[in-house]
Amino acid sequence: MKHFIILFILIAQIAAAQQTEMSLKDAIQGRYTYLRPSTLRGVAWQTNTVYTFTSEKTLWAETVKKGDKKALLTADELSKITGVNFPRFPRYKWLNSSDILVKTPSTYLVVNGINKQLKYKIVLPKTAANTVFNAAGKFVSFTEGNNLFVAFQNGEIVQITTDGGNGIVNGQSVHRNEFGITNGIFNSPKGNFIAFYRKDESMVRDYPLVDFMAREAEPKPVKYPMAGMASHHVTLGVYNIKTGKTIFLKTGKPLDHFLTNVAWSPNEENIYMAELNRKQNYMQLNCYRVATGEKVKTLFEEKSDKYVEPLFPIQFSKVNEKEFYYLSRKDGWFHIYKYNTDGVLIQQITKGKWEVTSILGFDPKEKNVFVQATKDSPIENNIYKVEIKSGKIVRLTPEKGIHRGVLSTEAANIIDFWNATAVPGKVDLISAKGKIIRNLHTASDPLKNYNLGENSLVKLKTKDGKTDLYGRLIKPVNFDPEKKYPVVVYVYGGPHSQLVNSGWHNSARWWQYYMASKGYIAFTLDGRGTNNRGRDFETAVHRQLGVLETEDQMQGIEYLKSLPFVDVDRIGVHGWSFGGFMTLNLMLRHPETFKVGVAGGPVVDWSMYEIMYGERYMDMPQENPEGYKNSNMTNYVSNLSGKLMLIHGVQDKTVVMQHSMKFLRACIEQNKQVDFFAYPTHPHNVSGVDRLHLMEKVSRYFFDFL
Amino acid sequence: MKHFIILFILIAQIAAAQQTEMSLKDAIQGRYTYLRPSTLRGVAWQTNTVYTFTSEKTLWAETVKKGDKKALLTADELSKITGVNFPRFPRYKWLNSSDILVKTPSTYLVVNGINKQLKYKIVLPKTAANTVFNAAGKFVSFTEGNNLFVAFQNGEIVQITTDGGNGIVNGQSVHRNEFGITNGIFNSPKGNFIAFYRKDESMVRDYPLVDFMAREAEPKPVKYPMAGMASHHVTLGVYNIKTGKTIFLKTGKPLDHFLTNVAWSPNEENIYMAELNRKQNYMQLNCYRVATGEKVKTLFEEKSDKYVEPLFPIQFSKVNEKEFYYLSRKDGWFHIYKYNTDGVLIQQITKGKWEVTSILGFDPKEKNVFVQATKDSPIENNIYKVEIKSGKIVRLTPEKGIHRGVLSTEAANIIDFWNATAVPGKVDLISAKGKIIRNLHTASDPLKNYNLGENSLVKLKTKDGKTDLYGRLIKPVNFDPEKKYPVVVYVYGGPHSQLVNSGWHNSARWWQYYMASKGYIAFTLDGRGTNNRGRDFETAVHRQLGVLETEDQMQGIEYLKSLPFVDVDRIGVHGWSFGGFMTLNLMLRHPETFKVGVAGGPVVDWSMYEIMYGERYMDMPQENPEGYKNSNMTNYVSNLSGKLMLIHGVQDKTVVMQHSMKFLRACIEQNKQVDFFAYPTHPHNVSGVDRLHLMEKVSRYFFDFL
Repeated sequence: MKHFIILFILIAQIAAAQQTEMSLKDAIQGRYTYLRPSTLRGVAWQTNTVYTFTSEKTLWAETVKKGDKKALLTADELSKITGVNFPRFPRYKWLNSSDILVKTPSTYLVVNGINKQLKYKIVLPKTAANTVFNAAGKFVSFTEGNNLFVAFQNGEIVQITTDGGNGIVNGQSVHRNEFGITNGIFNSPKGNFIAFYRKDESMVRDYPLVDFMAREAEPKPVKYPMAGMASHHVTLGVYNIKTGKTIFLKTGKPLDHFLTNVAWSPNEENIYMAELNRKQNYMQLNCYRVATGEKVKTLFEEKSDKYVEPLFPIQFSKVNEKEFYYLSRKDGWFHIYKYNTDGVLIQQITKGKWEVTSILGFDPKEKNVFVQATKDSPIENNIYKVEIKSGKIVRLTPEKGIHRGVLSTEAANIIDFWNATAVPGKVDLISAKGKIIRNLHTASDPLKNYNLGENSLVKLKTKDGKTDLYGRLIKPVNFDPEKKYPVVVYVYGGPHSQLVNSGWHNSARWWQYYMASKGYIAFTLDGRGTNNRGRDFETAVHRQLGVLETEDQMQGIEYLKSLPFVDVDRIGVHGWSFGGFMTLNLMLRHPETFKVGVAGGPVVDWSMYEIMYGERYMDMPQENPEGYKNSNMTNYVSNLSGKLMLIHGVQDKTVVMQHSMKFLRACIEQNKQVDFFAYPTHPHNVSGVDRLHLMEKVSRYFFDFL
Repeated sequence: MKHFIILFILIAQIAAAQQTEMSLKDAIQGRYTYLRPSTLRGVAWQTNTVYTFTSEKTLWAETVKKGDKKALLTADELSKITGVNFPRFPRYKWLNSSDILVKTPSTYLVVNGINKQLKYKIVLPKTAANTVFNAAGKFVSFTEGNNLFVAFQNGEIVQITTDGGNGIVNGQSVHRNEFGITNGIFNSPKGNFIAFYRKDESMVRDYPLVDFMAREAEPKPVKYPMAGMASHHVTLGVYNIKTGKTIFLKTGKPLDHFLTNVAWSPNEENIYMAELNRKQNYMQLNCYRVATGEKVKTLFEEKSDKYVEPLFPIQFSKVNEKEFYYLSRKDGWFHIYKYNTDGVLIQQITKGKWEVTSILGFDPKEKNVFVQATKDSPIENNIYKVEIKSGKIVRLTPEKGIHRGVLSTEAANIIDFWNATAVPGKVDLISAKGKIIRNLHTASDPLKNYNLGENSLVKLKTKDGKTDLYGRLIKPVNFDPEKKYPVVVYVYGGPHSQLVNSGWHNSARWWQYYMASKGYIAFTLDGRGTNNRGRDFETAVHRQLGVLETEDQMQGIEYLKSLPFVDVDRIGVHGWSFGGFMTLNLMLRHPETFKVGVAGGPVVDWSMYEIMYGERYMDMPQENPEGYKNSNMTNYVSNLSGKLMLIHGVQDKTVVMQHSMKFLRACIEQNKQVDFFAYPTHPHNVSGVDRLHLMEKVSRYFFDFL
């Protein structure tokens, strides 16, 4: 099968040193604690040529030129200045070249880091949440319960909304964090206004979660907008700090549309939003007048016969207030566009069959934009400088891997955090011209003494041979090519995910190394629908979730079957959430292939999933009955022949436990044996200390039955 | 171990015929359908010397003297008479020697069976429930929703209560069916009054059950009075049919007492009740005046330092209206007492270290009472005639086994339904003098072609050597004494149960035969706390549930370990409800012994169980914190070393799923692996067609891990 190409095999094995077997504790807890690669902490740019970072007790500064390390401020000094005890140097942010912002759970402190003085502080109530600091206005906006407040440095606290409660929520994230939304407060750039989401979810049904840990179990209902049912109504309020008045933008009907990607004009006169219809196939970029709430105009539209998914707010130019940049997938790939405020497209800045994944910033004259992108490979993420005028693009990170850049204040320098297949983690200082000035930190390999399975990337093709698919294969520890080994596939497969890339250990979950240490081949493949591969690769799954994703996973299986050391009668699969859905798809659509499956928090039937994510990919149940039927796993239960376990968090508010309950019921009705486990206090996944219990349960299921 | 005595070994094996292996379907579904022993259906006494029974289409009569079978009435005739289509002859009841009562879902029909005429009918609304017919008054009392109604033969329907709803329930069973309560309507003997329970449960907390099968899961809360928390308040109303007025008996405070064992005086002037305090250690037998609701007097009291549990209403003498009979365990064993209505004890009629389990009736002059009792063995149930004056007792059923008698109208004859270890079922006609007149029916053995494990009863001793314990051992099919076999213990162990007796196959669950066919020894033992062994045997477990029951089960284990063919390293245990609690006790208190356990619907912590049953045995949590702590299975999770699966019906209103949830949580917190399965639509047990799925799940767990 000649199209199977091994891309990269990890690491010459130094037999003498590799003595340690990876334990489950190492894999699950060690990964993020005692086996985590070291890094440089608290890195930030003080100026265009001075960067700072923290050690346990101290904020350090170094110049780009010399790299001479100088203590700026200690935790003890900070404690003395602020009157707050900081046992270690806290997280901080440079507000300008002299002032840092630090915070405690209920106080924001602005400190002059040069002359070591407290400039001012803002004290919040202990129950404040969703706090947002505004440097220009010197205030903190926040929520308490379902209302919005603002606190000033003089101690004054003003309540902005009073209608919170009974289904009204102010100042919090809306639309279930889809469309790039992460918060509900948008302070204006000059500090004169606070814009905020108001959500009316009184018409959304309560989903009956239950707290079983109470003395007597107690209902803890949550609003859950289920596909095809009533959705919440969101509006955007704007509070004027000077007048104390709030107006609402006249966003009109239908009320169940989505208001996303809120952006202020630099002059505070207008607010821009990407507004999307519930069907998510028609977006308007709209401008509203802050003074009146009136809609000024629709700048442009995006339409699709599948869906439009705005994820990034517009970013205004700093050299021309009538222009802005916008990151859109409208040509099939995420690229940067420059518009003017009349809605006229001035220029497409980047172009090609690759994606800009992030805009790091611009140089002061906006001649260049710095981005992270997949230009050189969809499984890498490099930093590039793009000349705006010409579109000329220069890669600044020579070594392949996953890079994340922090641009200096005037874009002269970049700190590059990166890792790669055989690189646990490095922090490099690079110039905007692409010169590596110096290495700031190199993590030693915490796994250097571990006896790990050989990890390689493979590049396969979709069934029609047209599209690349990337996979990762880990061989069992002490691999013997003469033997036959069982396989455990780990799968996710849903939009906005990428499990296989050129990060450290090809971004393998260490659980896969654990399984490899127990004699299993660990395999993962990213099929259609997943991220960084462009619009068409993703939207191919529209209205038929599970179908092509399964077809692509089976290409991985064909590859595995071509390997002489794979025991084709012992293939298992595990995944969570969308990966739980995929596990069910694979177990039920290919019972001849999969002997054992563990589906965690699985979607069973998209009609029980929520509106914002679910209807994007599936439309409403009433609009796509065939698609819902074909993707409803209860309709495939009669195919079940392997050993299948479902696991669900009883407090799951994302994929509600009803999914597993209906699946179990279908199995029982058809007298099909199935296994189940419930985590009574956990939400959509099992994190924290209990994750060890979870992964032991998952692992044992394969040990017992595969 | 000389005190292990094999009591009875079942059945010479006829090797040639025994070819069939018992399948799980045979064991679970066949037991109550295609493998159920045949019997005589619809047996009743028309007169003192004529009994009747039904075939598919016909009501037959036979005389005691000749046994000459005569068709009395056919289904076709009955259909024609009543205008209602009866495709088969229905269940019926003789109201006197000529009239039978039959019913459809919403009509009661009184038919003269001799001259074949409809006498009258009473039509009910389709939603009528809890219907009770009164022959003297010719009415049917019933409930609709939470209110009480009465329907007359003239078509009139009167609504008696109007306050039902919002926590008020009229005319239904109360106190969760404890204290022998099965209904909430008590029509008076002459048909002039309807007494009924009124329950105010507005102060009882809702337990949040959830219907996961709905489009979006829906809360379906139920009132669940949890141990130590607020209990419901019950009163007894009396509706006067003539006046249409209702008065309530002045039962007074505390309002959370239990009103049990309601009985009418024959003249309808008084109502008698056994009233019990919430602590259940003090009972009064009280008399109330119907006309006024006033309490007339307390006839007598029963007290205990453990608990009093009245189960049987008083029965008035038919020869002296000022005397009644009462079945009480006050001397340690259930025996019959005669009192007068002044509360003076006239006579203890039966006596001894055995129990009257049921009063069948009296002869017309009340010289003799006919009872079922355990006089000859606690694992048999025979029919006896007791001369009231002398207490002289004569056994009427010579063959040991489990007998159930139906006394003729004037006590001259008895129809005896019985089965025994090797007797699938017989129906004999016997005279009140103990002569077997004839056999009416002998069931053939539906298992005669099955290859079953050898089934024997064993008599062991409690650890202190003082008390007998009965057990049942089934050897694997094709037993080879040279081999070692694993054991699966099936356990219940709670009050009011007896799993081991001299019924057909020693009352083994056929699942035990199934397991025997798969090579397992199946063992069951009734420990202290179980039924038919007297008060002290039962109440030994008071305030310390699980402790002595476990000790007694371990006597069974000691016996098993003494057998050369038992593989002591492979012992498992399964039980449901109290048996689930016992499974947890055994797995966690004796992890060195039990390798695999399956606990169905288990009580985990008695503080989550209900008031009426739970506080009887455990007192309130606040009164017995040590006892609750010691019986709380979450406190033993650290001992868990075997494979343990919990199974719970998600709709369980008896042992709420909170029990399993808290147990799982404790296991997760202590990083102990445990398995779980949930039946989403099932209540406290899994019955109906899905029971096959359940028992396959249970069985497989032992196959996989024991």
